[in-house]
Amino acid sequence: MTNEIKNLAVLGCTGSIGRQTLDVVRAFPDRFRVIGLAGGNNTALLQKQVAEFKPRFVFYLPGKDRPSFESCSFMPLDEMAAHPDVDIVVSATPGSSGLEPTIAAIRASKDVALANKESLVTAGSIVMGEARVSGSKILPVDSEHSAIWQCLAGEETPPTRIILTASGGPFRGYNKKQLKKVTAGQALKHPSWQMGNKVTIDSASLMNKGLEIIEAHWLFNVPIDDINVMVHPQSIVHSLVEFADGSVKAQLGCPDMRLPIQYALTHPQRLPNTELPKLDWQNISSLDFEPPDTDNFPCLKLAIEAGKKSGTYPAVLCAADEIAVSLFLANRLEFIGIAGLIERVIQQHEEMFIANPTVMDINTADSWARDTAIRMALGDEPCL
Amino acid sequence: MTNEIKNLAVLGCTGSIGRQTLDVVRAFPDRFRVIGLAGGNNTALLQKQVAEFKPRFVFYLPGKDRPSFESCSFMPLDEMAAHPDVDIVVSATPGSSGLEPTIAAIRASKDVALANKESLVTAGSIVMGEARVSGSKILPVDSEHSAIWQCLAGEETPPTRIILTASGGPFRGYNKKQLKKVTAGQALKHPSWQMGNKVTIDSASLMNKGLEIIEAHWLFNVPIDDINVMVHPQSIVHSLVEFADGSVKAQLGCPDMRLPIQYALTHPQRLPNTELPKLDWQNISSLDFEPPDTDNFPCLKLAIEAGKKSGTYPAVLCAADEIAVSLFLANRLEFIGIAGLIERVIQQHEEMFIANPTVMDINTADSWARDTAIRMALGDEPCL
Repeated sequence: MTNEIKNLAVLGCTGSIGRQTLDVVRAFPDRFRVIGLAGGNNTALLQKQVAEFKPRFVFYLPGKDRPSFESCSFMPLDEMAAHPDVDIVVSATPGSSGLEPTIAAIRASKDVALANKESLVTAGSIVMGEARVSGSKILPVDSEHSAIWQCLAGEETPPTRIILTASGGPFRGYNKKQLKKVTAGQALKHPSWQMGNKVTIDSASLMNKGLEIIEAHWLFNVPIDDINVMVHPQSIVHSLVEFADGSVKAQLGCPDMRLPIQYALTHPQRLPNTELPKLDWQNISSLDFEPPDTDNFPCLKLAIEAGKKSGTYPAVLCAADEIAVSLFLANRLEFIGIAGLIERVIQQHEEMFIANPTVMDINTADSWARDTAIRMALGDEPCL
Repeated sequence: MTNEIKNLAVLGCTGSIGRQTLDVVRAFPDRFRVIGLAGGNNTALLQKQVAEFKPRFVFYLPGKDRPSFESCSFMPLDEMAAHPDVDIVVSATPGSSGLEPTIAAIRASKDVALANKESLVTAGSIVMGEARVSGSKILPVDSEHSAIWQCLAGEETPPTRIILTASGGPFRGYNKKQLKKVTAGQALKHPSWQMGNKVTIDSASLMNKGLEIIEAHWLFNVPIDDINVMVHPQSIVHSLVEFADGSVKAQLGCPDMRLPIQYALTHPQRLPNTELPKLDWQNISSLDFEPPDTDNFPCLKLAIEAGKKSGTYPAVLCAADEIAVSLFLANRLEFIGIAGLIERVIQQHEEMFIANPTVMDINTADSWARDTAIRMALGDEPCL
């Protein structure tokens, strides 16, 4: 076991996962060096991060207030992800923008700590196929997929079943009438996890869990029908895996994304990190489980169907969901309208469906679904 | 991975673990061949087993009704455990009689599926030391230790903490007044597991969990202070392991000893076995945990103290407990008298204590503790 310093490129460094990745790097200055930072619109934070971590390369969205980074050079996302000096790419840019740099990193045989769900959901076949060819390791960062990965360590036999746990979100137990009234503000108060707005709304609608089923299907090569969801409000059991002999393994921990991020970066080693909270068994009296309510939270079913149809459907699902969530956050769509809008977009996709899409086909389906969703929701109103 | 047939010697074949081991063998006739069977007093069952499995060697306790086994030859326990043709020894004889054949098997470099708790509790240092020398693998059969072992698969870093789960037994929640009245009959109705009488009473008194702490200490090289107990009445989570990064892994399953037995025999592979029940997540709504009640169930504390003092103390603990449980089962000692009797025997041991005992020292301490316990409990009354 060598403990050489690993060079990281953090794509999406100003987002929730990006910031927490840098927290982990701070805890292990002898293990990790940030040589690339790619941020989005939050230029002020990016500047602070650059000042602290002194990366060699930086990426930012072009705009009026284009900052100047004297100490480092601008580098496009794809190029940074594939740079010869990078060991691990943390792929944590939001939405469909994560796909191309992820593929670039994989083609360059980088290990990819993958937080960008859309890469696997929309292009799982391509991503995993490229990884098989290049030998790139896909290191899951989602707490659920990290849990499954941890449970599969040392196992020679693939699992017969995966059980993804879901917090159930802030509207767990609500009926349709109650759901009709909920606001973006209420949805953003997630009971357990600190996450970005988009993921938090997806968590409230159970769409997030549906996307995670598709991710798990690709990551662990398990049929979608053998991946179940259980609502577990305490968010302590992060997922479970069942084997052929009936044995089940679970991974548990405090709901803190720094743990799966650290595991992705240090595995198979586990390093002590006093910053990370530990479960306090004096205060755990019960771990509760219930089946998800797919009648009142139909996004889960929509995602499972899109995952089974595969091809361009998951890209359409993701894009329509991104628009629907934006409209909800802007108070231009009701919470219960999210699933309805996505469903209508999916229904219109049949004619354009491509079973074995290229990245370009996926991008085309993505754009089509965004346009269609906006048109359906707003008609002739000006776009968001 | 070769799937050669493994030759088994099953020591204690007529007991609960022995019978369930033979169930597992029945399920995989292409994997396992029973070449040695060692039974105790249940000659009728031993004869049936010999007729079915046609072992080459058999052991039985000498007595008046000494059976004749035409098809196979009598062989002493130690010799069978070390026979060159044996691949795996299932060590499931009860009590202190398991130690010597276990050591014989280890010295002969056999893999030992270890169900006999006393081997590790009374002589953990010797057993693990011999295994390091011979390269023998100790395969845990106890559901808790199997759970820990399964959770440690693929982990490079030792655990920072082990949490053993306990069903709590039939008297969980009872106060001293209630415990004063309980009978052997009530104690033998264990809510979750099918086990022999001795283990069932130890389970009701929490002594069993104390012995398991000492076992886990030796098996996994974790200090006794870092091994905790949580009462988990559903007996679904079989134990948990915490790592340096705060991550916790748990193994779950239906309470059925055939699963850990099968895992011990097939690991690192897991084989489908339709005989083994699977967890039904439709019917699991809550997994409950509470700290053990060491005031009303002091045996747990006695075991922890004996484990920390080490040397001959654990042998004295086990022997005194064996006598105390026999007396309770014979209605000659109250349930709450079990801990008291053991404590008094332990208190008398100080002068004879040996810090680094040989097997002979352990056997001497065992005999001394039995005699002392009987004398203390029955005075001049005739022995059991």
